[in-house]
Amino acid sequence: MAVRLHEIGEFGLIARLKEIVWRTDARVMVGIGDDAAVVTYERPVVMTTDALVQGIHFTRDTMTPETTGAKAVVATLSDLAAMGAVARHLLVTLALPPDTDVEEILAMYRGMADVCETYDVTLIGGDVVSTGGPLVISVTATGELLDKPLLRSGAKPGDILFVTGDLGGSAGFLHALFADRLTMLMPLDLALLRERHQRPTPQFAAAQILAEEGCTSLNDVSDGLASEAHEIAEASGVHLVIEADRIPIPPALRAYARMGRESPLDFALYGGEDYQLVGTVDVRRAGRVLARMQASGVRFTIIGRVTDGAPGVELLSQGIYQTIEKRGYNHFEAALRGDKEIR
Amino acid sequence: MAVRLHEIGEFGLIARLKEIVWRTDARVMVGIGDDAAVVTYERPVVMTTDALVQGIHFTRDTMTPETTGAKAVVATLSDLAAMGAVARHLLVTLALPPDTDVEEILAMYRGMADVCETYDVTLIGGDVVSTGGPLVISVTATGELLDKPLLRSGAKPGDILFVTGDLGGSAGFLHALFADRLTMLMPLDLALLRERHQRPTPQFAAAQILAEEGCTSLNDVSDGLASEAHEIAEASGVHLVIEADRIPIPPALRAYARMGRESPLDFALYGGEDYQLVGTVDVRRAGRVLARMQASGVRFTIIGRVTDGAPGVELLSQGIYQTIEKRGYNHFEAALRGDKEIR
Repeated sequence: MAVRLHEIGEFGLIARLKEIVWRTDARVMVGIGDDAAVVTYERPVVMTTDALVQGIHFTRDTMTPETTGAKAVVATLSDLAAMGAVARHLLVTLALPPDTDVEEILAMYRGMADVCETYDVTLIGGDVVSTGGPLVISVTATGELLDKPLLRSGAKPGDILFVTGDLGGSAGFLHALFADRLTMLMPLDLALLRERHQRPTPQFAAAQILAEEGCTSLNDVSDGLASEAHEIAEASGVHLVIEADRIPIPPALRAYARMGRESPLDFALYGGEDYQLVGTVDVRRAGRVLARMQASGVRFTIIGRVTDGAPGVELLSQGIYQTIEKRGYNHFEAALRGDKEIR
Repeated sequence: MAVRLHEIGEFGLIARLKEIVWRTDARVMVGIGDDAAVVTYERPVVMTTDALVQGIHFTRDTMTPETTGAKAVVATLSDLAAMGAVARHLLVTLALPPDTDVEEILAMYRGMADVCETYDVTLIGGDVVSTGGPLVISVTATGELLDKPLLRSGAKPGDILFVTGDLGGSAGFLHALFADRLTMLMPLDLALLRERHQRPTPQFAAAQILAEEGCTSLNDVSDGLASEAHEIAEASGVHLVIEADRIPIPPALRAYARMGRESPLDFALYGGEDYQLVGTVDVRRAGRVLARMQASGVRFTIIGRVTDGAPGVELLSQGIYQTIEKRGYNHFEAALRGDKEIR
């Protein structure tokens, strides 16, 4: 029978969580168990925080407890990668309904612990509180800068625009789920799209190469390529041209989009939660960066270029230029409408 | 007319929040506005996180938006003080219902900004997400260690046991509020108890003296003296004797307790949210520590001593020793019962 959170209490829960996340880390002077953790860093410290809310960012249909925990950490680590940092430590706060099944919480932490092990990150603290509402996971991550911080603001005309990995798969999975079309997908296509949504990966290998070779701007793709490209264009004061045919879209998504006559591009441009990197590189360095990415097994695709002109983003598709709106997703408006599509 | 959050969206809100929290800080290389913040530290870094949930930790009756923001920060900074650190940076995550009045959110941030200014702390980032449930504020704070970390684990027989400030006032205010007895209080007593609950202060001045003079254990009083003393007893493997008459209880609380025939001691022992420091000091250093505390205007009270014996806490009251239970407050059980008393 399921053990509920209120039966074991905060101290009971924390004792079990400590076992799951415990690992050795020479940078940790004081770990979980006192008022606060104490850690040491040798370089400038990069810090970021990201939260996921049940019913808004995930549901029982879209994610398992284990992938929810893992993804909450990945979403936060992705911001560290986008700054050119290596990840170091995590603090995790959970607001939990008191009747939560303890096994679900432990599964979430096992998901976090797996990601921590993969990227050599240590969970050093957190807080567990009760809520009368949905589950909230808030993750704060620290990293150390590899070299200079990789900002959004240095793109210049002539640079090439790139992305890592492929885009739109995560949004494609949600679309198929909510349109009740999962069974229309080929099993391997379904597995790939689900994987893109449930198990994104932070792009540290790419970030390290970019930190070493230099890139002129960098951003992670959490809200869709259109929005992230706009952020670079605005921060750098440049114009970006994206060539539609170059955007890397997984064949599984193309197959899905064909069925429902959806545009696969829309998923890549406005979908989000891909956690890939988008950025710009000086054209003279592009060849070397591409070669190193290939040697490291990182998919790296040139999708456009930086030009003069008013800050903004254009899409070149079949010889025609069209302006791409920023179209930032307004979570608050969506939640109020009771959107089925979660974000 | 009130502007609701969904009308201005995440980007609109963040632009306004940035204005409120902006301040210069030579340790900040990259502040709010990119994927992550970048900061520099010279000493070991202390990190902690704390969350408040509406309906559990506060309601519209117990707190104003401005004091809620301030207290969320103070609760987190208090842990830094209890480690012997000076505060540096904050990351704040808010999960907000989409129909939240924007003015309330701005008031919360003004409360945070006031605390930041007082303790020379800079808010360097955060996240704002939508929730279908109650408002959640999650604050992560960093600090730099002044000297060695002040842990809970070094108390030894013969040490004196102390607390800063006074205890129980915060719980007394909540008790009076929920028992509908606020109007029975003298106006100045009411003002003091409300202040204790709504505007606690982190004990950095005391922490600095303790870091310089050395203390053998230290903890902050967030869950009541009984629970915090137990944490020291367990971490240090010692027995603590608290003399009931020495516990500093504000006269306003004594007056309130007399009315309802409550025990003022219970508020101090089991109330919590005082955010004072409790700890132990070698008896040979106690005089010097006391003198420096007095010179700095910090109220510092010797309330007992450390003895041999099995880890635990005893209260000496009118010549009689009684064992004090840890009585950790189980938020989850309380929430399930629908307790009126919030924590």
